[in-house]
Amino acid sequence: MKQSFLFTKTRRDAPKDEVSQNAKLLIRAGFIHKEMAGVYSYLPLGLRVLNKIIGIIREEMNALGGQELFLSALQDKGVWEKTGRWDEKAVDSWFKTELKGGAETGLAFTHEEPLTALMRDHISSYKDLPKYLYQFQVKFRNELRARSGIIRGREFLMKDLYSFSRNEAEHTPFYEQVKKAYNTIFKRIGIGEKTVLAFASGGSFSKNSHEFQTICAAGEDTIHLCEKCSIALNDEIITEQTVCPKCGGEKFTREKAVEVGNIFTLGTKFSDALGLQYRDETGKELPVFMGSYGIGPGRAMGVVVELFSDEKGIVWPKNIAPFTVHLISLASSAKVKKEADALYEKLQKVGIETLYDERDARAGEKFADADLIGIPLRAVISEKTPVGKVEIKERTSDSPRLISHAELLKMISGK
Amino acid sequence: MKQSFLFTKTRRDAPKDEVSQNAKLLIRAGFIHKEMAGVYSYLPLGLRVLNKIIGIIREEMNALGGQELFLSALQDKGVWEKTGRWDEKAVDSWFKTELKGGAETGLAFTHEEPLTALMRDHISSYKDLPKYLYQFQVKFRNELRARSGIIRGREFLMKDLYSFSRNEAEHTPFYEQVKKAYNTIFKRIGIGEKTVLAFASGGSFSKNSHEFQTICAAGEDTIHLCEKCSIALNDEIITEQTVCPKCGGEKFTREKAVEVGNIFTLGTKFSDALGLQYRDETGKELPVFMGSYGIGPGRAMGVVVELFSDEKGIVWPKNIAPFTVHLISLASSAKVKKEADALYEKLQKVGIETLYDERDARAGEKFADADLIGIPLRAVISEKTPVGKVEIKERTSDSPRLISHAELLKMISGK
Repeated sequence: MKQSFLFTKTRRDAPKDEVSQNAKLLIRAGFIHKEMAGVYSYLPLGLRVLNKIIGIIREEMNALGGQELFLSALQDKGVWEKTGRWDEKAVDSWFKTELKGGAETGLAFTHEEPLTALMRDHISSYKDLPKYLYQFQVKFRNELRARSGIIRGREFLMKDLYSFSRNEAEHTPFYEQVKKAYNTIFKRIGIGEKTVLAFASGGSFSKNSHEFQTICAAGEDTIHLCEKCSIALNDEIITEQTVCPKCGGEKFTREKAVEVGNIFTLGTKFSDALGLQYRDETGKELPVFMGSYGIGPGRAMGVVVELFSDEKGIVWPKNIAPFTVHLISLASSAKVKKEADALYEKLQKVGIETLYDERDARAGEKFADADLIGIPLRAVISEKTPVGKVEIKERTSDSPRLISHAELLKMISGK
Repeated sequence: MKQSFLFTKTRRDAPKDEVSQNAKLLIRAGFIHKEMAGVYSYLPLGLRVLNKIIGIIREEMNALGGQELFLSALQDKGVWEKTGRWDEKAVDSWFKTELKGGAETGLAFTHEEPLTALMRDHISSYKDLPKYLYQFQVKFRNELRARSGIIRGREFLMKDLYSFSRNEAEHTPFYEQVKKAYNTIFKRIGIGEKTVLAFASGGSFSKNSHEFQTICAAGEDTIHLCEKCSIALNDEIITEQTVCPKCGGEKFTREKAVEVGNIFTLGTKFSDALGLQYRDETGKELPVFMGSYGIGPGRAMGVVVELFSDEKGIVWPKNIAPFTVHLISLASSAKVKKEADALYEKLQKVGIETLYDERDARAGEKFADADLIGIPLRAVISEKTPVGKVEIKERTSDSPRLISHAELLKMISGK
């Protein structure tokens, strides 16, 4: 994409009321726009990153045998009353509103209830189980404070996966598979090394619940990392659980962290309340055994920015960068401009995602923008560049080097 | 996809309170689920169709030079007060709710206001114009009645495109280009022949506004088709406009129709109210000249069902069908089962989207399901099918015929 085509501009300052580093940088670089506290719009660069994260998660969900659907945001109060979660005393983060005619409705902050109700139309026998359904859907949570940028929004995208199994024996191996898939996802997104599995209490659902916590100074959570192994305990259970459930270690280090994923064994809480049953081989009616598994793609994006930015701007990991190469032309002559155009065409032709800065602007401005936007590889063609060569530099490096156009293509595409 | 993997089941009856033909069929066939009146969830088959429609629209938006973004649903009241559209007297379809702390917010029913406000950060000079931005976003409209299934929802997906130009002279050619793109979209979706351009009043926006109306018995709109040419007038302007604005014809036929798209010249209404200006070549500050252009992908899907269904079920046009082939195995022997499996593998291998009914069910049930689901091409392998052959039938035909596996592949892939 030519940079003059991109409608967003970088800016020197973030909105004055913005305190989080991720939102400050993402706004300054033109990835997102702040509508109000905790509510952000995604601009083209931001949507590209978000879609890459979604793409990675979708692949892993499909590999688990998941089927994608898309549930509504507006909720039928009656369904939520059956599980007791319509009540503000049980859930204080509802956005509620009214249908014309006076009936109350609310905006989904999660989807266990409607999906369990829906599945009654499609599950009746043990032959219908297990089933795994997921979606990417905007959730609404009426948070009192929203000061963490896209890490904790009042409106945010969530991937939620739900499993429907016959019983705990059928459920547990899938739960373990999801753990592995989540590790793969965080690794592919680029935050694998900083992300640990944390034991959690599971709230009112069950004893069996885990969080994926990314160690990060901006985190709102506190976790307790076992000094002997790679496991953590979250803050809720550290008082009751004094030894590491994995290795028996007794020493823990406190760390700030962001919960980037969570997995719950729900058991039959929702199927009991909503009457989701199946007939087993003997004809007996039994409640379906459920699990739910969440990841916030926007939150993961915010964590990446918190972890990898420097004083100059964002540093995107390769797999989720908005573009693979930031090609910058510093041409003043027609001849060099033609050379830069030709390299852009070559990159386009082989399908390498390239942001091409062909704007009429100073070199300093172009370099500052490139550092702020954070594409992993910068490639510069200037009046000083020898014909057929290009000056490349990784975002994290200070040493540019000259290579040929062919070498650049080979380096990126591996061909 | 194997049909036993698909979690949805077809059903004989639609919900009793459902009156629209599109929702009845889509629910019975397992494409959507009714959450409440005017609120539907998309199940895997439905999401596949919706995504194909989205894919077609996205291609045409990109071809127009559009850039995709994703704006928030929750709205900042202050921005809407500036245009007067926060007031319930001006807009009676708001869903409003409250942020913790007491501030009012609402769910976007359209996005002119927030996008105009956002663009102030990115447009300052004539060099920044024109720009074309679009999104696929869920809109919320608090309709008093919602009896048309996914044709008129309280929550529905919309593609909305906005244009930002220097003046009317720069705007008009783009407006005409969008007309052409919309015709292409409706043609590709399969409703081109039934869709006409209708002159409309444009409400409070401008004189220049057009609708794309699909002639359809289930339509809530009335249009007046010029008997001489292919143009229509909508019901609002037929009293003041007595001759066809295209050919001068004076005879019109009344038709029921569904508005599947609309395009508006907004002029400077929003940029004036929100202060979106640019500096021209002489340094003068001028308001940006805007247009907006909508299509509801879910509504288009509903219209397709209304237009093309028969007494047996849905008939999907090729380009938006959830699958290209519905392969049905009626095997009772291991040998024939293997033959059907092998054909499925072959189809998968060359990337032909196939729903494979390998379920243990009666032939009558499988055929009835296939007719209800409405995939354009049915392919059957039974004990009677000669080895290497397959019995194919178009959804709209009554005459099955035998062809070889190779012929089937060639017929579909064109290779």
